[in-house]
Amino acid sequence: MSLTGQKLAQAQTLCHEHSYAAWLFVGRETPMQADPLLELILEGGLTWLSALIITPHKKIAVVGNYDADPLVASGDWDEVIGYVEDFAPVFQDQITRHAPTGPIAINTSESDSSADGLTLGLYRTLQKILPDRELITSEPAAQRLRGQKTPEEITRIRAAIAEGDQIFQEIQSWIPERQTEREVYNRVHKLARDRNLGFSWDPAGDPIVNHGPDSMIGHGIPSDKLRIQPGHIVHVDLGVTKEGYSSDIQRVWYAARPDETDLPEDVQKAFQAVHGAITAGAELLRPGVLGHEADTAARASLVNAGYPVYKHAFGHQVGRRAHDGGAVLGPQWPRYGKTVETPIRENEIYTLELGITVPRRGYLGIEEMAVVTANGIEWLSIRQDHVPFIPLP
Amino acid sequence: MSLTGQKLAQAQTLCHEHSYAAWLFVGRETPMQADPLLELILEGGLTWLSALIITPHKKIAVVGNYDADPLVASGDWDEVIGYVEDFAPVFQDQITRHAPTGPIAINTSESDSSADGLTLGLYRTLQKILPDRELITSEPAAQRLRGQKTPEEITRIRAAIAEGDQIFQEIQSWIPERQTEREVYNRVHKLARDRNLGFSWDPAGDPIVNHGPDSMIGHGIPSDKLRIQPGHIVHVDLGVTKEGYSSDIQRVWYAARPDETDLPEDVQKAFQAVHGAITAGAELLRPGVLGHEADTAARASLVNAGYPVYKHAFGHQVGRRAHDGGAVLGPQWPRYGKTVETPIRENEIYTLELGITVPRRGYLGIEEMAVVTANGIEWLSIRQDHVPFIPLP
Repeated sequence: MSLTGQKLAQAQTLCHEHSYAAWLFVGRETPMQADPLLELILEGGLTWLSALIITPHKKIAVVGNYDADPLVASGDWDEVIGYVEDFAPVFQDQITRHAPTGPIAINTSESDSSADGLTLGLYRTLQKILPDRELITSEPAAQRLRGQKTPEEITRIRAAIAEGDQIFQEIQSWIPERQTEREVYNRVHKLARDRNLGFSWDPAGDPIVNHGPDSMIGHGIPSDKLRIQPGHIVHVDLGVTKEGYSSDIQRVWYAARPDETDLPEDVQKAFQAVHGAITAGAELLRPGVLGHEADTAARASLVNAGYPVYKHAFGHQVGRRAHDGGAVLGPQWPRYGKTVETPIRENEIYTLELGITVPRRGYLGIEEMAVVTANGIEWLSIRQDHVPFIPLP
Repeated sequence: MSLTGQKLAQAQTLCHEHSYAAWLFVGRETPMQADPLLELILEGGLTWLSALIITPHKKIAVVGNYDADPLVASGDWDEVIGYVEDFAPVFQDQITRHAPTGPIAINTSESDSSADGLTLGLYRTLQKILPDRELITSEPAAQRLRGQKTPEEITRIRAAIAEGDQIFQEIQSWIPERQTEREVYNRVHKLARDRNLGFSWDPAGDPIVNHGPDSMIGHGIPSDKLRIQPGHIVHVDLGVTKEGYSSDIQRVWYAARPDETDLPEDVQKAFQAVHGAITAGAELLRPGVLGHEADTAARASLVNAGYPVYKHAFGHQVGRRAHDGGAVLGPQWPRYGKTVETPIRENEIYTLELGITVPRRGYLGIEEMAVVTANGIEWLSIRQDHVPFIPLP
């Protein structure tokens, strides 16, 4: 069965478990703006106003006439109905036939952007077509559909991580050339093109390349001025996609002065603190734990090592995208809403990221990926266990 | 001034003309799902819940801490406020300061997907933060911001069309090789990669390649079986993007049998009917005309030439995307909603597309682009004025 077919089967099971009469995926002109859940159950796009209707027993697509052929060809749908002049009566008829009573789930969420694909305009359209029906949020099912990976999805994420690892090895070999951040960024883009890889977030800021202490941290733009200098930390945050699935990993190196023979103490101490905090957080990861509990463990470990409190979440899920939504391993700040109160589940894939700004040297940030198992995690990335010492010529 | 700066200035003028206290562009995790209007006023993405607040006098960005630096660096914003723990009080404070009374425009529309960027979840969040404020649709301003191109935008679209023309010339030169639809599609993708071009719609279906009468018309998938055969029409619908702006053009060729010396009559007659109908519709295009009026003229021309009524719109706007939203040149079917009742405006760019299925030969479809001037149009594409006769070896 195709991956799309597997995810559709998973969606039907979730529909049954959550007692939805139907689960709606509604969209139009999806290359312009698509419900993030749509890519899980459909290859390609939808042009005119369309509804994919999933019930425990049926999978029905109501789409514009010109979109029907590829959906029929996919073999994924029990019925594909192409309309010409008016969506409303065709859609209404299908709901009456296949989901006559009971709650209808729509993709809306205040906390979780990955479960909030329905626009306000389309919601108002649905309300008009189905005035007497109860429209409820699909959030709990959506988070499971997206978060709980099938074996095929895990395999694809492993492949993306392996590609990223190879690029990190190339980046390490370039360090003695002392290029600018922008030059490193450009070389990574060329590599990715040659290898037919995509990027896990906006390619304008992927990879993030930080050369030393003056670099723009966070979701910054690579500088065309900053070159690697002796005594600086080189930090790269890279996410690549392969067959639609993402990696999100950070690595660091130390660019040594000619007179140095060993990693300086401040860099080594920061590395140990970051590595230890990731381990401390990872030890809590297992089904049923809440995201903020893992964050607290990592946060406490870093603070106990003498470093300031970090201003972001410890970890997030990765899948189709780098920030894949659902449960987040973050602090109980209003900005994270319910996402840090959501229990961790088996087969979810997280990336764990922490960093320390080392004065006069740069940002020492590490990020590792793991899949949640029945009683813990399995690392998907090969953990960075030291900071490579790279003498500059 | 950068193009983004120009569009921001246009947005402020529209805000003033429509008497909005503020115009909100709200988003989060925008690589996953973004308000289609966002790309006009912001380069790059937004990660945490963010609001870009445009008033007639101020441009303010309230964004997550890690997104602030690039927005400051762009120089486009009067104020950039990065928050850490909670979006709501920071955003509320800015609204109180800079838009204390009056309607606040939000990006929502039932008819026009390009003006419907606000999700239901984010709308509910806004309602909670601003419980006493009137939230109105930005649709009329949004359609002008997106539709009415600046000179720089028109220049970029011309450049995309020129790139597309070169690819069409290459495609014509390949016809004697009698490749499959998929092979032609793959070669176009390689060309586009080499020339650093993007695609105007989902690359899985761009270009649409139709070899003869058995091909999947519409938004179909290129076949890895169908080869060009003598006596068939070859049809390609191609959109490429350059510097963020799109082309959307269709071209046709005739693959001749060895014993043929001239274009067959049925093909020539269909070409003249399609060409004439595009001309008939184009003659109506000028500011103030309604989209359905232009559609009716084209439709009547084709029917008068003896062909069946087509089941789509005559034309749509092109810009950042191939289907760029706003006014549509289409029939008064419910599925087009208000978009075909919206007056055409100066500096909007339309593509005009029509086709006829010629029995046993294939789809004869042509699509041409034009910009609306003060009292008519200027063609942006070089109109196809005959069907090239390509003898197969």
